[in-house]
Order: sequence, then structure tokens, then C-alpha cells
Amino acid sequence: MPLSAVANSPRVDTRACVAELYSAVRRYSLKLASPLSPEDQCVQSMTEASPTKWHLAHTSWFFEVMLLRPCLPAYRLFDERYPYLFNSYYEALGPRLSRPRRGLLTRPALKDIHAYRAHVDAAMLELIDRCGEEQWEEIRERIILGLNHEQQHQELLVTDIVHAFWLNPLHPPYLREHDGLPIRHAREAANSPRGAPADQRPAWLEFSGGKAAIGHDAYADGGFAFDNETPRHEVLLRPYLLRDRLVSCAEYAAFIADGGYARPELWLSDGWAAVQEHGWQAPIYWSAQDENIGGGIEHWQVYGPYGLRTPDPGEPVLNLSFYEAAAYAQWAGARLPTEFEWEAAAATGRLAQAHGHAWQWTRSAYDPYPGFRPLPGAASEYNGKFMVGQLVLRGSSLATPPGHQRLTYRNFFPAGARWQFSGLRLAKDTA
Amino acid sequence: MPLSAVANSPRVDTRACVAELYSAVRRYSLKLASPLSPEDQCVQSMTEASPTKWHLAHTSWFFEVMLLRPCLPAYRLFDERYPYLFNSYYEALGPRLSRPRRGLLTRPALKDIHAYRAHVDAAMLELIDRCGEEQWEEIRERIILGLNHEQQHQELLVTDIVHAFWLNPLHPPYLREHDGLPIRHAREAANSPRGAPADQRPAWLEFSGGKAAIGHDAYADGGFAFDNETPRHEVLLRPYLLRDRLVSCAEYAAFIADGGYARPELWLSDGWAAVQEHGWQAPIYWSAQDENIGGGIEHWQVYGPYGLRTPDPGEPVLNLSFYEAAAYAQWAGARLPTEFEWEAAAATGRLAQAHGHAWQWTRSAYDPYPGFRPLPGAASEYNGKFMVGQLVLRGSSLATPPGHQRLTYRNFFPAGARWQFSGLRLAKDTA
Amino acid sequence: MPLSAVANSPRVDTRACVAELYSAVRRYSLKLASPLSPEDQCVQSMTEASPTKWHLAHTSWFFEVMLLRPCLPAYRLFDERYPYLFNSYYEALGPRLSRPRRGLLTRPALKDIHAYRAHVDAAMLELIDRCGEEQWEEIRERIILGLNHEQQHQELLVTDIVHAFWLNPLHPPYLREHDGLPIRHAREAANSPRGAPADQRPAWLEFSGGKAAIGHDAYADGGFAFDNETPRHEVLLRPYLLRDRLVSCAEYAAFIADGGYARPELWLSDGWAAVQEHGWQAPIYWSAQDENIGGGIEHWQVYGPYGLRTPDPGEPVLNLSFYEAAAYAQWAGARLPTEFEWEAAAATGRLAQAHGHAWQWTRSAYDPYPGFRPLPGAASEYNGKFMVGQLVLRGSSLATPPGHQRLTYRNFFPAGARWQFSGLRLAKDTA
Amino acid sequence: MPLSAVANSPRVDTRACVAELYSAVRRYSLKLASPLSPEDQCVQSMTEASPTKWHLAHTSWFFEVMLLRPCLPAYRLFDERYPYLFNSYYEALGPRLSRPRRGLLTRPALKDIHAYRAHVDAAMLELIDRCGEEQWEEIRERIILGLNHEQQHQELLVTDIVHAFWLNPLHPPYLREHDGLPIRHAREAANSPRGAPADQRPAWLEFSGGKAAIGHDAYADGGFAFDNETPRHEVLLRPYLLRDRLVSCAEYAAFIADGGYARPELWLSDGWAAVQEHGWQAPIYWSAQDENIGGGIEHWQVYGPYGLRTPDPGEPVLNLSFYEAAAYAQWAGARLPTEFEWEAAAATGRLAQAHGHAWQWTRSAYDPYPGFRPLPGAASEYNGKFMVGQLVLRGSSLATPPGHQRLTYRNFFPAGARWQFSGLRLAKDTA
Repeated sequence: MPLSAVANSPRVDTRACVAELYSAVRRYSLKLASPLSPEDQCVQSMTEASPTKWHLAHTSWFFEVMLLRPCLPAYRLFDERYPYLFNSYYEALGPRLSRPRRGLLTRPALKDIHAYRAHVDAAMLELIDRCGEEQWEEIRERIILGLNHEQQHQELLVTDIVHAFWLNPLHPPYLREHDGLPIRHAREAANSPRGAPADQRPAWLEFSGGKAAIGHDAYADGGFAFDNETPRHEVLLRPYLLRDRLVSCAEYAAFIADGGYARPELWLSDGWAAVQEHGWQAPIYWSAQDENIGGGIEHWQVYGPYGLRTPDPGEPVLNLSFYEAAAYAQWAGARLPTEFEWEAAAATGRLAQAHGHAWQWTRSAYDPYPGFRPLPGAASEYNGKFMVGQLVLRGSSLATPPGHQRLTYRNFFPAGARWQFSGLRLAKDTA
Repeated sequence: MPLSAVANSPRVDTRACVAELYSAVRRYSLKLASPLSPEDQCVQSMTEASPTKWHLAHTSWFFEVMLLRPCLPAYRLFDERYPYLFNSYYEALGPRLSRPRRGLLTRPALKDIHAYRAHVDAAMLELIDRCGEEQWEEIRERIILGLNHEQQHQELLVTDIVHAFWLNPLHPPYLREHDGLPIRHAREAANSPRGAPADQRPAWLEFSGGKAAIGHDAYADGGFAFDNETPRHEVLLRPYLLRDRLVSCAEYAAFIADGGYARPELWLSDGWAAVQEHGWQAPIYWSAQDENIGGGIEHWQVYGPYGLRTPDPGEPVLNLSFYEAAAYAQWAGARLPTEFEWEAAAATGRLAQAHGHAWQWTRSAYDPYPGFRPLPGAASEYNGKFMVGQLVLRGSSLATPPGHQRLTYRNFFPAGARWQFSGLRLAKDTA
Repeated sequence: MPLSAVANSPRVDTRACVAELYSAVRRYSLKLASPLSPEDQCVQSMTEASPTKWHLAHTSWFFEVMLLRPCLPAYRLFDERYPYLFNSYYEALGPRLSRPRRGLLTRPALKDIHAYRAHVDAAMLELIDRCGEEQWEEIRERIILGLNHEQQHQELLVTDIVHAFWLNPLHPPYLREHDGLPIRHAREAANSPRGAPADQRPAWLEFSGGKAAIGHDAYADGGFAFDNETPRHEVLLRPYLLRDRLVSCAEYAAFIADGGYARPELWLSDGWAAVQEHGWQAPIYWSAQDENIGGGIEHWQVYGPYGLRTPDPGEPVLNLSFYEAAAYAQWAGARLPTEFEWEAAAATGRLAQAHGHAWQWTRSAYDPYPGFRPLPGAASEYNGKFMVGQLVLRGSSLATPPGHQRLTYRNFFPAGARWQFSGLRLAKDTA
Repeated sequence: MPLSAVANSPRVDTRACVAELYSAVRRYSLKLASPLSPEDQCVQSMTEASPTKWHLAHTSWFFEVMLLRPCLPAYRLFDERYPYLFNSYYEALGPRLSRPRRGLLTRPALKDIHAYRAHVDAAMLELIDRCGEEQWEEIRERIILGLNHEQQHQELLVTDIVHAFWLNPLHPPYLREHDGLPIRHAREAANSPRGAPADQRPAWLEFSGGKAAIGHDAYADGGFAFDNETPRHEVLLRPYLLRDRLVSCAEYAAFIADGGYARPELWLSDGWAAVQEHGWQAPIYWSAQDENIGGGIEHWQVYGPYGLRTPDPGEPVLNLSFYEAAAYAQWAGARLPTEFEWEAAAATGRLAQAHGHAWQWTRSAYDPYPGFRPLPGAASEYNGKFMVGQLVLRGSSLATPPGHQRLTYRNFFPAGARWQFSGLRLAKDTA
């Protein structure tokens, strides 16, 4: 059973099947790290990013403190000091290294972290194999949560190392062609079966609005979802238009050429403040090939997992902040969709590039759904406490791990975040 | 016709009536400033606050650039340099003094600002009297906008000077009893007809949810509303409970005494960060009378427009950040209402203390309503460009000017803002 | 007896003479404040500057806590809260308002501060008149210290309000011509008897070096000096050259025109960092009259006590940081003098513009003299605790009060300070 | 010939001798790095510190741009991009990576840097061997400068990795006992032949003052010195006392126990501000073993190159800022010596622990000596441009490389720097 089929299958419930999924997800983390040297895996390029090594350790810590310590009686911590080092933000689980210091962890060495992972993996497989039947359902659910947690960090691992390599003046590529990793060129993504056909012009799709059911229903849908996608509930939508595909690099270059970064009337107030404070003139990884930034896409190079390259005009623009996405929409005479418009439209299957290309900024603040309840126990801090000051992104990106995408998925970041694979799809009110 | 009757009457449309309203609102600004010395009116206590004098000038500038310069042919600017000094944030209206520098304006002197106001007032009354009939409707609408704008600054004038006086180690009172200003003691407010009866215990009110019409409809409702309250649209609500009154000082003191500011599990992540960074231990204007901050409300004094005093236990707690309001709700086993729940409930007339006591933090981010369109022209920057990173507050406060409150009013501030008269009302899902 | 004669006379020792001096110095503070409105006197333009009103109060507090409270038995504090408000930095004298908050003191009102000064003055005159003979010598010394302290604040009062008015977009002048205040136009200063003759070209003066006695000797010299000018001691100097006058505005404009602010090789490392961080392109109060900042002095206007005006080419450049002064010297193929070179040369009487024009940055860090001992008691914090991280300036400026200048005077400021009346005189090693 | 004999020998002038010295110094850098993993060698713990790998590369770059590029005709840069990466602060040598970003250099990998060093070394030996006789003297001088430069970075390499490891919650030791590196335990240092005898009590040594010759004289002394140690010149000193040894850990613990970090009267103003801002309670690497920080040295552990351990009472206190050293001296009723007092006393040979234990803060700002001239050419930026805002330290530390110490050596750091091996020796005026 391929990973992508397993991860979201309605019921991954036999122990053998869970064990297989567990091993597959865990292996994939190491695979993502494999092109990186121990030095690469240690660096932290900014407070918001974490070292690869830390991601590898933190995801193991999650299994250790959420499952092994409470549920496997004979389990011994790999190292008593690791919970302090690798707790991310769980107040209930004790003190922890402050976030900006993660890059100081040259020790434990990478090989120690590999040993840590092996230790946790062996214990996890033992737990899966031997835990009592009465515990199994709860353990299974927590394992699936842990694997989805690790998948989130798999994407962060990629975005974080790309950011670090971008700040390195050598701009080394993270990946080489044909290395077998499923992070496609954005270019290939653009031409993939679910990508928009390159030979048709972008078009508006019409949606009639009305009542729409939003969010994940564990009973009806089965499969896993994060607590923030629940409860399923109805919203009322006005008729609206959505673009059939994502905004492309060529379109975004036209926005720049038209003075997009110099016209305050296009920007939200906080966005314009960010433009001025940081001197933004283009997306974070765009580098002018020549002086003519008023020209088209051919004047730009774009950095990504495969290094610095000239993008295809039609490939989706990536690495935008919400502010840039909103300014582009304003310039284009359109707007960003709400997360509800996005989900209702995506549910119809009519959107090209809904998944696997770029997270799509929505106009929706990351608020709790009506009736939202956080997970019980230590996992209650997973999502709920971040529900202020951030915006929802929908879809999934080229770096989203196989099997981790979902119609109801709510990704979220602050409005100024630029290092994620985040783009946009335009919306409009029906005239 | 009393001011409160005028301001929100469905149609203030005769020229005489508009002129009377104009004069009344303008006078009220000066009345609010009247207890303050020229020195007091010049100080800026933080970037987010403005000097009294600046409020007085900026509100005049609004009429000057939005009405007199474009519509009154013979009008001459009072001073060519004032638009630079008193533009707040209108990019389309030219460069301006940066916000943190407003407190440097010891010149123009207060008496110059008084002359500026008189100059603008005379011209405005001339404009009202003499403008062509074909212009009148548009001018009338812009005047009503300008008066509502001034009323917003009237409340800010109060909150800003209270903040400045709080930071002054002498803690001077802004107002004295019996000075005739309609800013009541919060205590009186608590006992006012619309206040909750002091002899009944707080109770939950039940609301059945379903479809609710939200926002202002110019045609149906008449009267003025800001663009951000439109368009009127329907939302779906689940059944819910709202508290019949606001959270009181005594209740909030119990939260403090129970370790509310030391328990991270009660706080949103950003809120807990704010507690730690700024050392919050109580609301901004609360001052412990003794060491026993673990005790009840009798151990506290609270600063407000009338100086430092011991609050009545039942009077609504004020000057909370969203973070504090949300943490209190969590502690109380409840939550904050959405702005839609608030509006639907308030529309029934069953909420005590809906208006005139405290702005009530909601759980709703300040996002545009579906179909939102900013005002045309220069006023387009009025609201829309701030629709990110803030939370909606509903109701109105003891400092909201007479006639300025409205069922559909959407006030908004960042989650960490503490110097407004902001409190909370609890909500709950129906079990 | 004119003030200037009194202040530095070897022995101001009769009670009548001290009383006269006291009154004259105290009056001069009020005179300096007299062109300023209550609003002007309240503003604080940056952390390093203080409001006029605070200067007026703090200098009174100095007499209150250093003399009246300890020495005048019946003395009652004017207001129990004032010591907290007006203590500057004396740890031994209790807690105090933090420096950046001085601008919040709209209360006490200016008239309260005037009453405070009158209260202190009356008590001081009583103290002078009635204290016991055995106390007199100590009290006299402390009074003279208090008056010199007040004179220091008189100059700061001027530099601070000039800074505040510069930041005010209206750039109001602090003084008007013919107002009788002894702060001359820098222009007049340049042509004054002690100024350099405008009809002679600047020249190098030769000094032979050798042993030089530096600092103030209370016994030999009589008169007042601060503790940091003592003890008098000998230093060894090499032969050196000093410029006969200060660097002029025209000379400094040539430095700018030659790319002075764009050539890192001219700057100290920290200086170049300041240029880049703050975007310095000219002295703080220089404003280009046109685009041609590569041109001469005629392209500049300079703000000062008398407002914005075009300087005479020969008038001394003012308001430089040490970094700018050092970069200019490097550009001119020269260097800054040490404070010892300056004092030895000035002692000969051959330097034009030694006093009354601009404080002159020296290449000497503000270190203690060998054998330095701070004043006893509370005044021990007066100078000693600032002896790190600052540079010595010598001479005196157009704003130094009459009678306050002295050959051995050591003024000191951090290297980046630009708001003082600070210029430079070039030095060179004898070839 | 042992390295220590070579480095400071009056004339290292034969090519063979220079080549031998070159190789020895270069090898020592690698030896210092040898206990560190590639991950360890990549980390940057703060802006002021640099990664080990960067030190290894930068010192090679120095030879490349100062010698190979200008003097070896056939030389090809190892990598065209390295000058940008490894230039530290030489404005004349082109743009460079900003200092806080040095820790991002996970690429080039450590093995690339090793190859870089080998490439440079081969070329340097070729240059030494083959350059024309007419060039030799200049090249020889520049090589000696480059080697002294590398030795400075050898000490920084140690202090920087100790800082990084201290911030690592695991506190790994940098060195193990008996690993053959010449960085002794401070404990051993204290008992070494030049250390103060443990069985005698500390004593004051008397010095008579008078004329003293300060600084290095190339002609008289021969051997290498930095430009900032010249020209040799005379100063006048008063009679003074110096302590025969450094302040010990036990003495410093008594200062802490006596409330040293809570008594503002002991501190310079900026020092007290640092105590309050950063919450200093002990030297940076001191860690209380129990609650009793008011107790003696036995209550403390101190981190150093060999990890966390309990210091011997008599061993010199290390890792003080100037502020802490000055506060200690004030508490002890003494003062810090000037750099001139130190040099004159050390020249007599009577000071124990003058070298090899701790850099000793002096009371002297880092100002140029009279007649100071920077080196010609690109090396002119070596020292002169840092001569403001820093203090001089004299002596040398346990981490100073063999052969790099010198009587006239002037080390310098900002007053708040705590991560160097900096201690103090007390001074006093002769009564």
C-alpha cells in the first residue's frame, strides 16, 4: 500500500498497517534530510525556522512524551535532557530551550539524533505490537496524530533549509534533479495532471454560493483531521468567482513592473509598513537578473529547493506573504477568497492546482470554528492556542508530504510570513 | 433636539439640522478638552496614542481636505503646513508627520488650534448654507462621516489622556465629579437603567441560533453607518448562551487571585508571551493597595477618568487586552462570543450593559464582510486597509459620545491593546 | 558686579556676594525659558534630552536635597512627590522617574514649577543668611556647586529645546533677534573680539610640547572647578600644531561635497556604522536648500537657536558628533587634539575661538585624572560614574552661560551625540 | 626551535625560519579546532563571536588577499566567492557577508575550508621560497603580521566556542584533560611557576612612578608588535601600588556575597544599567550550585574550556566585563591600573600572573598613542579604526597562543564584553 494511500485512508486500524505507516513516515523524514550535511542540519536561519536536526529530534520527542512515557511501562527516556531540548511549545510538558537558541545545538550531534530516532522507533513498534487491546484505539489515534505532526515538520524542514540556503551567499541547491525525492520542480508541478493546462488561458469559475458544509466530520468522512478542522458546520456564501488556477510568476512580475511595491493604495496598512520597513521589492526568493525589474519574468531568477533558476512564466508564484498576496489581488481588481469559498469550490473538483503547488492565502483570519474543542490532554495545546493574529492558507504545496493533503486542511501563518510555499488564487464577487 | 437624538436619527437631512448637529459635535470635542491645560493637551504617551491637541486639529483637517478644499471654491487653507501635521494615515492625501512625533507639536500652540477650529467651523457652516442643491446630498453624507469621525476621536481623546495621566506618577484625575461631562463613573454606569440590576446574580441568556442578519442596511435602517458595517448579510449561528451582563471587577479580581496571570494553560500563545514580556499581573490601570494581590477586589485600586479609586465589586472590568479577556473566559469555563452572536443577541434587547459601559471583545477577527466595498475617493482608506491583525469589539463604552453607539458598530483593536475601555461578556455553546 | 565676573572669581565668599550670585544664576534660567510657552517647556524630544520645565525643577531639587533638607532645620519639602519626579540619576537619593518619561510631566504645571523655584529660592536665601558660621564654608561650597550645576543645565536647556524645535516640522526659532539673551548668533560669535579675524586665512600654530600642567588646582587657582578637573598633574607632550581657529561651515561643506559621508576610509568603524544605520549625510541641523549637496555652503541652511538660516562661510560648524569631527580631521590630513594638547595651547592665549563658539571634540576618552577622587557625600555621583564610553570636549559654546567657561573645563558626551553645540579644531604632529 | 621561542624572537628573518614559523602557527589553528565536530565549527552564538570554521577561513583569506594575490603572480584564488565570505571588516578589500550571518555558512563545508587552508599554505610556502630578494623584507613583515593575526584568532576561536558551548544547555566541555593542548586549566595556571605562590597572601607592590617609557620600539626591541603599540613614548606616572597577583575566584565570590551586584554605588553608571538590563548576578560562566549565592566560592561552579567545575579558591577570576572589574575594585577600596602603570610595573618583572592567566582590564580607554600611525596599505584598517569606545586590557590569558604574549601588547574590548578570558589586578594610589 503506497504511503499516500495509507495516510488518509478512512481506517488505518490494524496494528500491522499502523506499524507500516509509522515506519514509512519516519523514513521519509530521514530521506528529506539525506541531501544535507551535519553542518546543514544544525543551522537556524531565523527565530521562526528550526534546524533540520531539531525537526528530526522534536518529532521523536512527540512520540516519546505523548506515547512512550505514558503508555509503555518499561520505557526509558533516551536522554533525560532531551525533553528540555526538543519540546517546542507545550507548556504542560515542562520547560524548554527558547526558540531562538535551537541553532546552538551542535551537540547532541546528528548521529546522536539518529540514535534517538532509532531508540524511539524500536519502542514505538514494540508499543504498537504489545499494548493492550483496551488501550489500542486511543494509542492508535495518538500515533496517527504524531505521524501527521511529523508530516507537518517534514514540510517545515524543507521550507526552513531553503530559507537558510537562500541566506547563504553561495545559494546552494537543497535538491538535485533525479534524486528521487517527491518534491517536484514547481515547473513540473505546473504541468502535472492536476496542474492547469498550459495551453489554455486562465479563467474565472462561477460558484453559486448558498449553504455550504465546512470542515471535517470524523464520523461521516473517517480518516484523520486536526482538531482545528472541526466541527463540521454550515456557512452561508454569496455567489462568487474563483480563478481556475493560481497566480503565475509572469502575472506577478507584471504586478512588480507596474510599480506594485511602490503604490500604497494597493496595500493593507500593515502590509505597506512591512514594505517600507524591510525594503521589499519582490518576493523573498526573487533575484533580479539585471537592472530591469520593471520588465517581465525573464528578468528574474527565483530560488527554490533546486537552487536559483529562471521560472517558467506559467508556474505559480511562491513564497508570498499575505500582504503581498492581498496587494496583488487589489491590483488585479479582485480579492482573496475566504477559506469557506475555497473549501466549497475545491469540494466540486473544478479547481486546478488546488493541491501540490502552493498554499493559498485566504482572506480568513485563523479563528476557531463554531463549537471548536481542542484535543484532550497534552495535545490540547496543538492548535487552539495559536488562534489569533494569523491567516488561513488552504490547499497544499509542492513540499507537502504525500498523503498529508486534505480538502478541509487549515494551514495558518502570520500575515508577514514569506518563507512558506505560499501563493494565491484570485476571487471576485459575482457582479 | 438633543445630540443623542440627532446623531443617529434615520435622516438628518435639512441643512439647518445638519448645521446644528455639526456645531453640537464640534462643541463637544472642546468640552472634552476643557479640563486639560495646554501642556496636558500636547503630550503623547505612546505611539498608539495622540495628543488632545492633535485630535482637535486632525478632526478639523478631515473637514478641510474632505469637504472645504474640494467643495468650497473660495476656501483658503488656514495654514499650508497643517495638512502635513494633521493627516493621520491617508496615503492619497499626501505626506505626513510620522505618528510617534505627534507629541513634538508644541507649536502650533493650543490657541492656534482653537483658531483653526473656528476657521474651519465658519467655512463649514458657510458650505452647509450655500452649496448647490445638486451637491447637497453628497456633501451631507460626507459631513455626517466627518462628524462620526470626530466622535471616534472624542473617545480616543479620553482614552489617550487617561493613559498619559496614568503614566504620570502623580496620577492626576482627568475629570472631577459634577463637571457636567457625560462620562459617567463606571460605577454609575453599572447602576444605570441599562446596567444590570445590582440585586440579581449574573445569569446566562439562551439564544437559539439559526439564520441571523448582520450589519447595517442603509436603505432599510436609514441613518449612518461606517462602510465596515456593510453590506448587511446573513450568517448561520448555532444555539448559544450569553451572559446577561459584563464581567465585573470582583469577578476579575477572583481570576487574578486564582493565579490567572501565572497559568499559561489559560492563555493564547501570543497572550502568554505578552504576559511574560511585559510582566502583566493585572489590568493596566489596576494598582495593588497592599501586598495581597491574591485577595479580592478590595485589595485593588483602579485608575480611570476620575482618578484612582476603589471600584464597586459589580462594576464592569475595563481596560483589558483581548488576551486578558480570552484568558478570563477560559478560566471561567466559557468563551468570548463571536461578533455575530453578539449582534444577534443585542438585537433582541435582552442584553444588559450592551452599551455605555465597556467595549466588549469578541472572538472575531476584523475581516471584511462578504461583499464589502470601501467608501469611494479619499475616504476609501477609512476602514478597509486595517482589516488584518485586529479583533472586533462590540457595544460601546462609558466614553463613547452620546449618539455614537449602534447595534451594528464594529470597533477594532490589536489583541494587545489595553488602553481602551474594553471589557468582556462571556459566551458558551448550548450544551 | 557682573555675573561673569562673579562666577569664577577666586573667592566668592561673603554671604551677600553668594546670595547675589545665587539670585543671578537662578534668574538666568527663567530668562532662558521665557521665550517658551508652557507647551514648549513640557516636551521631551528624545531620551537624552529633557523638558525645559524639568530642567527648571531638577536644578531646584538639587538645592533642596543637597542643602535645604540636610542643613535648614525648619525646611519643608515643597511637595513630597517632587524628589521622585526630579531626581536625575542619584542612586543614593532615592528612586526616580525613568528618564524617557520626563516628557509625560504635563503636571506639575509650569506655574507649579515656578512656585517650586520661588519656594526653594526663599529658603536658600534664608539658609545663606542664617546658617551658623561653622557650617558656612561647607554650605558655600555646596551652593557654588549647585550654581555651576544649574549653569550646566542652562546650556542643556538650550540644546534640548533646539533639538525639539528642529524635529518640529515648523522649525520655529527659539530666539528672536534683539531679545537681549546672551546667546549670540554663531555669526556674531565668529566676528567677536575673540573670534578669528575674518580677513586672515586659517593658520597652524606651533607648540613645543614637553611637560605641561593639566587640571585645576584649588589652592593655586582658587575659584570653582568640578571634581573631574582635578587633581592638577603633569603630562608629557610631543611637539604639535593646532589650528588657530575652529573648522568653519564652508570647510565642512567642502568635506560633504567631496563625498565625506560616503567614504568609509575616513571614518572610525563605529562612526561608519552610525552613518549607515542612521543615514547621516550632513550635520544634524543642516538642510539642503537644493539638490546640489555636492556644492558649497551656499546650498545649505542650518538650524539653530535663531531658526533656519544660511550660515556665513567662516562661522564655525556646530552640532557634530565625535565621529563626524574625526572623519573631517582624517579627510583634512590632520587629527583631533588630545585634551592635554588643547589645554596647554589654550593656556597660552594664542587660540582664537577657544571659548564661546563651540565645544571642541578632543581625541581623549573621558577617563579620570591620576589621583582623581569624587566629591564626598551625595555629590560623589556627580561626575565619576560617567567616566567610561565618552569623549572629552574642551572650550565652551555660544550657549555656555556667562561666567561658566574655564580653561580646565572637561565637558563629555558619547561619540554619537550630535545635538550639542560641538565642533572641532584640527591638530597635527609636528613633522 | 619551539614555537614560543620563534614567534617573538627579535629577528625571524631567514626564509627557512619564516616557513617553519608559518607552518607551526597554521598547524596550531587546526589543532585547536580538532576537538570540535563539523557542526560545532559552524555555530555562531552571538554577533560578536564567529564560527570556528570562519576563523580558519578568514585567517587564510588574510594571507590570500594581503600576500598571495598581490605578490605571487601565478596565484589563483581558491574560490572567487570566498573573499566575500571571509573578509571581516576591511572596507578597502571589498564587500563582505555581514557579521551576524557568519553562522549561516554551513557551506562551504569544513572539508572545503581544510582544502582552502591547504591551498593557501602551499602557495605561501612557494611565495616564501621563491619571491625576489628585493621583495622579501616587505613580504616577511606582512607574513609575520598575518601570523600574529592568526594567533589573535586562535584565542578568539577558543573564547567563541566556549561561549557557544555555555549557551548549549548540555554545557559540553571543549577540551578533555591530557589532550595535549596548551590551554591549561586555570587551576594549573594559578600554580604555575609564574603564578602567585598559593602559600603566600596577596600583597601590594610599590612603584615609584616618574617617567616611564611606554610602547614598542621596533629598532631597539626588534621583534614584532602591532601598530597600536607604537610609537614608544614617555609618560609621567605618580607613585602607585599594584597587587602582586590577580583577583581570585574566592575574592570575587565574597564581592557577590556582599551584595556586589545589588549596590549601585559600586558601579559606573553604564555598568549599573547593564546589571539591570541583563539581570547580571555573577560572572557570565558562573552557575550557582545551590540557593546560597550569598555564600563563598564553594557555592559556585564555573564553566570554562574543560567544562563546568568548582574552581580552586585562589585561581584568578575570569570572564568579567570591565564594568564588573571596576565595581569589584570600588568594593575593594581600590581601582584599576592605567595601562601605563601596568606596563611600567610589568617591565620590572615583579608582577606574578602578568601573563598566561587572564587579560587584565585597565582604566585606560583605547586611544591612539601620541604620534600613532596606522600600517600602510590595506592593513591600515587593522587597529586604528577601532580606537573609540573600548578599553585596554593588558597581559595575556590561558588561551593566548604560545609566543603571542608581549609586555607592550594592547588588547581591547568594549566595556560590556564578558566572553573573553578577562580578569583584573587591583591598583591604588600611594597614600
